[in-house]
Amino acid sequence: MNKSQAKAILNQLKQESGSHSPSISTILRSVPEIKLSIDACYLSNPYATELLYKYIKKDLLETDRLKDIIEYYPAQNNDIARIIARGIGINPDKIFVGNGAAEIIQAVIHHFGGNKIAINIPTFSAYYEFTLPRQEIVFFKTRKEEDFQLNKKDYLEFLHREKPSTLVLINPNNPDGGYLSNQEIEELLEETQNLVDCFILDESFIHFAFEDTTLSPVNSEKLIDKYPNLILIKSMSKDFGIAGIRTGYSIMDETRRKELTDHGFLWNVSGLAEYFYTLYSSEYFKNEYDIVRKKYIMNTQMFLAEIQKIPRLKAYPSKANFALLEIQNGTSSFDFAMDLLLEHGIYVRDCSDKIGLDGAFIRVASRSFEENLKIIQALKQLGS
Amino acid sequence: MNKSQAKAILNQLKQESGSHSPSISTILRSVPEIKLSIDACYLSNPYATELLYKYIKKDLLETDRLKDIIEYYPAQNNDIARIIARGIGINPDKIFVGNGAAEIIQAVIHHFGGNKIAINIPTFSAYYEFTLPRQEIVFFKTRKEEDFQLNKKDYLEFLHREKPSTLVLINPNNPDGGYLSNQEIEELLEETQNLVDCFILDESFIHFAFEDTTLSPVNSEKLIDKYPNLILIKSMSKDFGIAGIRTGYSIMDETRRKELTDHGFLWNVSGLAEYFYTLYSSEYFKNEYDIVRKKYIMNTQMFLAEIQKIPRLKAYPSKANFALLEIQNGTSSFDFAMDLLLEHGIYVRDCSDKIGLDGAFIRVASRSFEENLKIIQALKQLGS
Repeated sequence: MNKSQAKAILNQLKQESGSHSPSISTILRSVPEIKLSIDACYLSNPYATELLYKYIKKDLLETDRLKDIIEYYPAQNNDIARIIARGIGINPDKIFVGNGAAEIIQAVIHHFGGNKIAINIPTFSAYYEFTLPRQEIVFFKTRKEEDFQLNKKDYLEFLHREKPSTLVLINPNNPDGGYLSNQEIEELLEETQNLVDCFILDESFIHFAFEDTTLSPVNSEKLIDKYPNLILIKSMSKDFGIAGIRTGYSIMDETRRKELTDHGFLWNVSGLAEYFYTLYSSEYFKNEYDIVRKKYIMNTQMFLAEIQKIPRLKAYPSKANFALLEIQNGTSSFDFAMDLLLEHGIYVRDCSDKIGLDGAFIRVASRSFEENLKIIQALKQLGS
Repeated sequence: MNKSQAKAILNQLKQESGSHSPSISTILRSVPEIKLSIDACYLSNPYATELLYKYIKKDLLETDRLKDIIEYYPAQNNDIARIIARGIGINPDKIFVGNGAAEIIQAVIHHFGGNKIAINIPTFSAYYEFTLPRQEIVFFKTRKEEDFQLNKKDYLEFLHREKPSTLVLINPNNPDGGYLSNQEIEELLEETQNLVDCFILDESFIHFAFEDTTLSPVNSEKLIDKYPNLILIKSMSKDFGIAGIRTGYSIMDETRRKELTDHGFLWNVSGLAEYFYTLYSSEYFKNEYDIVRKKYIMNTQMFLAEIQKIPRLKAYPSKANFALLEIQNGTSSFDFAMDLLLEHGIYVRDCSDKIGLDGAFIRVASRSFEENLKIIQALKQLGS
C-alpha cells in the first residue's frame, strides 16, 4: 500500500468515526503497514499506566486472580460507589459510577439535560452528539484571539439571554487545555445557581492542572454540598491511563443519583474496573500515584514550553496534558496529522471536525519524557 | 462471628441488593469468615471460562498485550458490531453491542418498551425493574402445576386482552429453565407480529439448550429478517463464563439500532470485551468452544437427573444450566440457602424475592462435574 492509498483509507475511517478519532486498533486492522511508534492522540499519563500495570501483575496475574475477576459478577453500582466514597471523601449516595465518562455524559444529558443545553466550543463533541432530538443546543464560542479562555462577562450575558436549562463546562477544557481556577468555578456556580437546573462540570483532566508550584491536587467535588444543581463528571481514563478498562464517576445530588440507579445501571462496572476502584481508594496507591502525577505534570510543562518554540506552529496555553496547535505553514490538519502518522508513526488528533475551530488545528498529547522528545523532533521537521 | 450473626449480615446484604443476589465479592468483604467452595448462584459454564482463560494467558499475559488492552481506547460500538457479525452471520447494522445484557435490557425497555410491557413470571427481574415510571407492566404467570411451561393458548388470550406494546420472553427461562422450541418461538412471532411493536426474546441461556441428541446449537437470530418487531438479547456471561468482562449483544431492526447509537453507546465496550469478541468470531475458537459447550450440557443433564432423585426437593424440568428446586421439608428458602453457604460453602440463589413463585424455592447452577457431585451431596444432606 502506498502513502496516498493509506491516506484514502485513513480518511474513510475518520469519516466513519464521526467526530471522534478512530481507535488505534481500528486503524491498525485497516492499515497494518503503519509502524505505530507513539499514540499522542490518546490523552493519558503513561507513568500511571505503568504503575497500575505493576499492581495488576502483582495482584492479579501472578496470583491468577484475574481468572476470578473475569469469571464472576462484579459488585453492583451502589457497592462500587461506596468503594469510591472511601477514596474521595464524598457521600456515596452522591456518587454515580459509569462505564467510562461517556456513559455518564449520555445518562446525564438524557435524564437531566432539559430542553436547552449551553455548550462552549470548541469542546468534547459527545456533549452535543449525545443530546436527544428534542433538546436544543446553544453554543458559546470562545475565541482563539483570547486563547480560548472563557470570557466570563460575555458568558454570563449569553446565559441570561439564552436561559438554558443546562450548561456544560470542561475544566481544563478539551481540546485547548484552558483552565478556570477553583475560585472562578465557584464564582460561576454562585452566579448561575438560580439560572440553570443543571451545571455540568467535566473534570476529566483536572489531575493535570495545578494552582501553584506545589502541584497539589485541585478539584471541585466538595462544592456538591453547596450547589445541588452541580453535576461533576470525571473520566479516569486520562489520569490513570486506563481507557481500555472504562472507568469514571459522577458526583451529583442524591435524588438525581437515585433516579438513575432506580431504573438501571446495575452491573455497569467490569471486574477489572472494580479492582481498579478498590486500588484507587487505598492510601498506599494514592501516595504512589501522586508521585507519577506530579512527574507527568512537570514533564508535560516542559513539553509545552518546547513546543512553543517551534516556528509556524502556534501552541495555545494549556493546563491539561495536551497542546492545541495551529498549523501556520499552509498544510491542512488532516495532511499534517497523516504525515506524522505515516512518516513518524506518531498518531495525533486532527481537529478538522471540531465545531468552533477556525483554521488548521491538531491536538498533541504529552507522553513520556522520551516520547515527547521524539514528538517535538517530528513536529519541528514537519512544521518547517 | 457466629452463624446467626453471619445470617443477619447476609440478610442485610440481600435486602440491599434488591431483587438480585449480592455478588460473591460483596459477601466475602462483609463476612470474610465464609469458606466459599462453589458459587452455584452464578449461572455459567466453568469449562468455557477455562478455555477462554487459556487463550487470555497465551495471547495477552505471556505477551504483555494486556497492558495495551488496558491503556488504549477500545473500538467503537459499530466497529465491534462488525467483528460480531463475522461470527454469527448477521448484518452488522442489526447488531447492538452492550456492556453486558443488563445495559441492553435497560436501553431496549427505555427506548422501545412503549407504554405497556407484558412479562411472564417468574422471570429475570431486570425486565420489570428497569421500566420507567410511565410504563405499565402486566404479568402473565406461569403455573408450577404446569411445570412453569408457557401455556400458549392462555398467553395469546392474555395478549389479546391486555394489548401490550411489548412482550418479553426468556428462552430458556430464568429461574426455571423452561424451554420453547425454535418452532414454538416462530409460531409466537407469527401470531403476535401485528399485536406487539416489540417482541423481546432473551436467549442468554440458549447455548445450553438443544433439540435432539446431536446437541447442535439452536437460536432464533435469523428470524430478525422475517420479523422486524423482534429484539433478541443475548448475554455472553453465562455460556462463556465471563460475567466480569461484561459482554452481550442484541439483534434488532436497523432503524432501532441506529436510534440507539445515534445518541450514545459509543465506547461501551472494554478492551477485554473487544478481545473476547474477536476471539469469539474466529473459527478455531468456535470449534474448541463447541466441545466444551457440549461437555457442559451432558454434565448438566446428568446433574439434573441426579437432583430429581433427592426426596423433599422438587426439581422442575430445565433446558438451561440450572435447576429450580422447591424445598418441601418446611425450611424457608433463605435458611436453606444460608445453611448451604455457611455449612458447605456453596452459594445458591434464594428465590424468595422472585415475583410469581409461591413456595420455598432456590435456584442451583450446574458447575463442573466434581463440583456438581459436591452440590448433590450437600443438597441430599440438607434436604433430608
